[in-house]
Amino acid sequence: MTDRAPSWNGWEPAARPPLPAAARRELTRLFGSWPAPTPPVPLADVTLPGSALPDGARREFVAALGEEHVTTDRTERIRHAAGRAYLDLVRLRSGDAGGAPDAVLRPADAEQIADVLRICVGRRVAVVPYGGGTSVVGALAADRGDQRAAVALDLSRLDRLVALDRVAQTATLSAGMRGPEVEAALGGLGFTLGHFPQSYRYATFGGWVATRSAGQASTGYGRIDELVHRVRCVTPTGELDLGRGPASAAGPRLIDLVVGSEGALGVITEATVTVRPVPAARRYEGWSLPGLGAGLEAFRALAQRLGPGLAPDVCRLSDPDETRTTFLLGGTAARLARGYLAVRGHGAGCLAILGWEGEPHLVRYRRRAAARLLESYGGVPLGGTPGASWRHGRFGAPNLRDTLLDHGLLVETLETAADWSALPALYRAVRETLRAELGRVLVMTHVSHLYRTGASLYVTVLGVRDRADPVGQWTRAKRAVTTTIQSYGGTVTHHHAVGVDHRSALADEIGERGVALLRAAKAELDPTGIMNPGTLVP
Amino acid sequence: MTDRAPSWNGWEPAARPPLPAAARRELTRLFGSWPAPTPPVPLADVTLPGSALPDGARREFVAALGEEHVTTDRTERIRHAAGRAYLDLVRLRSGDAGGAPDAVLRPADAEQIADVLRICVGRRVAVVPYGGGTSVVGALAADRGDQRAAVALDLSRLDRLVALDRVAQTATLSAGMRGPEVEAALGGLGFTLGHFPQSYRYATFGGWVATRSAGQASTGYGRIDELVHRVRCVTPTGELDLGRGPASAAGPRLIDLVVGSEGALGVITEATVTVRPVPAARRYEGWSLPGLGAGLEAFRALAQRLGPGLAPDVCRLSDPDETRTTFLLGGTAARLARGYLAVRGHGAGCLAILGWEGEPHLVRYRRRAAARLLESYGGVPLGGTPGASWRHGRFGAPNLRDTLLDHGLLVETLETAADWSALPALYRAVRETLRAELGRVLVMTHVSHLYRTGASLYVTVLGVRDRADPVGQWTRAKRAVTTTIQSYGGTVTHHHAVGVDHRSALADEIGERGVALLRAAKAELDPTGIMNPGTLVP
Repeated sequence: MTDRAPSWNGWEPAARPPLPAAARRELTRLFGSWPAPTPPVPLADVTLPGSALPDGARREFVAALGEEHVTTDRTERIRHAAGRAYLDLVRLRSGDAGGAPDAVLRPADAEQIADVLRICVGRRVAVVPYGGGTSVVGALAADRGDQRAAVALDLSRLDRLVALDRVAQTATLSAGMRGPEVEAALGGLGFTLGHFPQSYRYATFGGWVATRSAGQASTGYGRIDELVHRVRCVTPTGELDLGRGPASAAGPRLIDLVVGSEGALGVITEATVTVRPVPAARRYEGWSLPGLGAGLEAFRALAQRLGPGLAPDVCRLSDPDETRTTFLLGGTAARLARGYLAVRGHGAGCLAILGWEGEPHLVRYRRRAAARLLESYGGVPLGGTPGASWRHGRFGAPNLRDTLLDHGLLVETLETAADWSALPALYRAVRETLRAELGRVLVMTHVSHLYRTGASLYVTVLGVRDRADPVGQWTRAKRAVTTTIQSYGGTVTHHHAVGVDHRSALADEIGERGVALLRAAKAELDPTGIMNPGTLVP
Repeated sequence: MTDRAPSWNGWEPAARPPLPAAARRELTRLFGSWPAPTPPVPLADVTLPGSALPDGARREFVAALGEEHVTTDRTERIRHAAGRAYLDLVRLRSGDAGGAPDAVLRPADAEQIADVLRICVGRRVAVVPYGGGTSVVGALAADRGDQRAAVALDLSRLDRLVALDRVAQTATLSAGMRGPEVEAALGGLGFTLGHFPQSYRYATFGGWVATRSAGQASTGYGRIDELVHRVRCVTPTGELDLGRGPASAAGPRLIDLVVGSEGALGVITEATVTVRPVPAARRYEGWSLPGLGAGLEAFRALAQRLGPGLAPDVCRLSDPDETRTTFLLGGTAARLARGYLAVRGHGAGCLAILGWEGEPHLVRYRRRAAARLLESYGGVPLGGTPGASWRHGRFGAPNLRDTLLDHGLLVETLETAADWSALPALYRAVRETLRAELGRVLVMTHVSHLYRTGASLYVTVLGVRDRADPVGQWTRAKRAVTTTIQSYGGTVTHHHAVGVDHRSALADEIGERGVALLRAAKAELDPTGIMNPGTLVP
C-alpha cells in the first residue's frame, strides 16, 4: 500500500520543482539574505525508539488480522509517524520520528476494526486511525495518553465503492479510498464527488469526513459535512450508524458528532454522500480585480446576490502579495498578463480564479451572471489560461514546499473563516501579527470557499527558518496568529481540523460547556481513552 | 401575551371556515356515512388538577421574575397544557387538560432563565420551554418525570431583534419572537428570514431552532438548521454559546446538538441566522403533471439538474387525491382549471405549486429553466392563480381542521423524508398502512422540501373518528405507519420533530449507541433531569 503514500518526509519526490531564479531573487530581497540549504537526513539516519507493543497484544492483533497486516517494521513505523504540517516535516527531515506508532495495523473491514479496538481496550493500547497521512494539525503523532503503547490503524484496505444509488445520486464509500480512487470508481459509473482539497492525491475519504474537509470547489459542491448523509463509525463501545434520508428533524443531528471527530471517538469505516453526474461542461478562467477591497465586495456579491448553486463552483481571490507571486512563478503568459493589467490600472490588483461545472447551458448562464457582477466591481477578464494553469497546478503546492524546505525556509499555511463583515480587519490583523512575530516574511492570502455570510481566508507564510529553534519560532507565531484570528471573530479552523495544534484554541471557541459536551461524548463512546489520545478533545 | 396565542383548543376561531357542501358530499360518499358533530366543551368545563407547585418554589420564582410573571391561573395553565396535534385537540375539546403545567413562568431574558433553572434544580421542578405552543408531537405536555412539579417556561418576553449585520447578512433573534414578529422586525430593515412553516403565525423562532424546523420555502431558503450559525442555550449546568463564522472544521459541529434538542437539554435563548434582502420579485404559479410518477421524476430533475439555488424556492407536488380535494375546495377558477386539465389528459393529474423569489432577472431565468424541465415531463402551466391561491391559504389548514374536528372527523398529518429512490414505494406503503389501520379514509399526500438526494412526503389523513376511543384509534395507526416509514428508509420525522410521539421510533433510527450519546449529552447538561422530561430522549 505504501506506493500510494507520499514520501516519508515530504510530498512527491519526482514532482519536486526547482525554485525559479526570479522567485529566489525576490525572496532574497525581501528577507535581506538567503539561508543555507537544509537537506533532509537519509531515511537510514532517522532516530526511532524500539516498539513498545507488548507481545500479547501483537499475538492478538495477528490472530485478528493475519501476520502480514501487523507490522513493527522500521520504515513502516516512520512512514506513519506524522502528518504533513511544516513542523512534521522539519522534525522528520532532521531525523526525528518521535511520533511513530509502535506498530502499524491494516484491518480489512469494520469487523476487524471492532476486533482491534476490543484488543486495544483489553491490552491498553492507543489507536491512531490513519488515512492518507496528510493531516497538517498534528493529529497523527502517536500519543499513548495513559495507554501502554500506540498503534497506527492504517485504513488503506477499506478501499471499496460499497454502493451507488443512481436515482438518489448517493454513493457509499469505504473510508480508506484516496481522492483519485474515489473519483476513478465514481467516474467509471458517470459520477463525481467533486471534492478536491489540496491533499486530494493522498488524503482519504474517511479522513475528509473525520476532519470536516472542504475541497477547492466547495462553493459549488459543498463541504464534505454537507455531502454526508449517513456514516458508520466503529467505537470501542459499539458501532454508530447514523443518518436516514436527505434531511431530518429527528432530534439533534448526531451524525455531526461523528463528522469532525478526528479519530478521537471511533473509526469511521464508510459514509454515504451526495454525488453528481460528471459535468458535461467545465469552464475555468482568471479575472483581475483592481484591489482586495473591490475583490472582497465582488466575491460577497457572488455569494449573496447569486448565492450557492448560481455562484461559480470554484471561487478564489488572491491578495496583491499572492497575485504578484503567482505571476512571478508563472511563465511568459503570466508576464504578458501582468503587463496588460498594469496598463489597465491593476498594477497592484488581485487575481481571481473562477470555475463552473455542470450542464453546458447552466455553465454559460452562471458564467455570464458572475461576469456581469465582477465587471460592476471593476473586474477584468483574463481568459482561460490562468484557469487552466491553476487547475494544472492545484495539487502541486506541497511539492514546491519541499523545495523551499531544502532551501532552509520556513513555509507554512493557516486558515480560518469569518463573516464578510469581519474579513477585511481580520485579513490585516493576521498579516500584522505574522510580521510582528516573524519579522521579514512573505504573507500570501486568498479568499475561497464562499458562503452567504462569509468566506474562508487561507494564508501562506514564507520566511527564513530559525535553524536553532524552528519549532519554537513557528509555535510562537502560530499561537499569536490563532489568538488574533479568534479575537477578530474567525473560527480556529475552516478546513484543517483541530488535531493537537488547535486543541487549546478549540476550548476558547466552544467554551467550558462545549468542552464538557465533547468530553461526555468521548467518555460514552471511548471510556478507556484508547482513541487517538491528545487529539481534538481539550 | 396570550392575545398572540392560538385558541385554547384549536387555531384561530375567527378564521374557521365552513365545510364546503361539495367536500361534505364527497367525504360522505367515501366514508359511507357522516358522523354526528362533536363540539368542544366550554373552557369553564375543562378538568384541571390543582397546582402542585410547592410554595417555596413559587416564592423563589416570584423573587426572580416578579409577581406578574409567575402565574398559576387556571386559564393560563390550560393554555399551556398541550401542543396542537390532533390528539392534543381531541383531549382539550373533551375537557381534558391533563398535560397542564403547575405554573406558567415568563422570564425576561437569559439571566432570568438561568435563575429559574437554578431554582428548578434546587426545588426539583421540571421545566417545559414553551414557544408558540404549536408542537404536533406532544413536546409540550408537562411531564414531571421524577421531579415534584412542572412549570411551563413561556418565552414570549424574549421578543427582540438583537442584532442585524447588513454586510454578512445575519440576524440575531430572541427565541420568543413569533413568525410575523420576525418578519416584521427584519422586513422593516429590508431583510427576510424566509422561514414559513404552516405554524408561522404562532410558532416562535426559538421553537424552530429547537425542532429543526423546515419552512414551506425551504428548498430555496434552507431549513432552519442550515440557516443557524450561532446559538445560545441556557442549560442547568451553564450556558452554551456555539458557532463561529460561516463554517468550521473545529471538531464535531456541537451546535447541531442544540439545534433539535427540543428543550430537553436547555433553553435556547437566541440564535444568529442567515437573512436575505426582501425579494424584489416573487412569482408563484401552478402546474399540472400527468401523474405522480411523472411528477416525482420532474421534481427530481428540479432538485438534481437545477439543484439548490437554481430550483424553485417553493416546490410542492400534490398526489391525485390531494389534487382532487384542492380543486374540490377551490372556487369557480378551480373548476375551470379542472375541466381544462381533463381535456389535456390530466384528469387524474397532480397539481404542483412552484414559487421563485429574488432579483427579477434571476427569477425570470430560474422560472424558464424550471418550466423547460417540467414541460419535458408533460407538465402543463396553470398560471399564477393557483400560486396566488396557495399563498393566500398557506397558513390556513389548521383552521379547516378545527371545522373538521367539530364535524366528528379524525384529521391528522404526518411526514417523513426519504431518498428519491425510496419515495415511490414509501408513498404507496404509507397509504396502504393507513387504509389497513383506519378503513375508509382520505389520504392526501404532497412532496415538498426538495434536496438533491430526496424529498419530504407530507400526508394528511381524514376519516371518521372513533368516538369511544379516539386516542387508541390514532395511536395504533400512527405506530403502524411509523414502522412502515422506517422500514422503507424514511426518517421518522422531516420537520415535526420527536417530542413524545416519535421518541421510541427515534431509538430505532439512531440505534443503541446513538441513544447512549444523546443520554450522555443530557446527563452532562441536565444531570438532575429537569429539562422537558419525557421529550426527545428515548
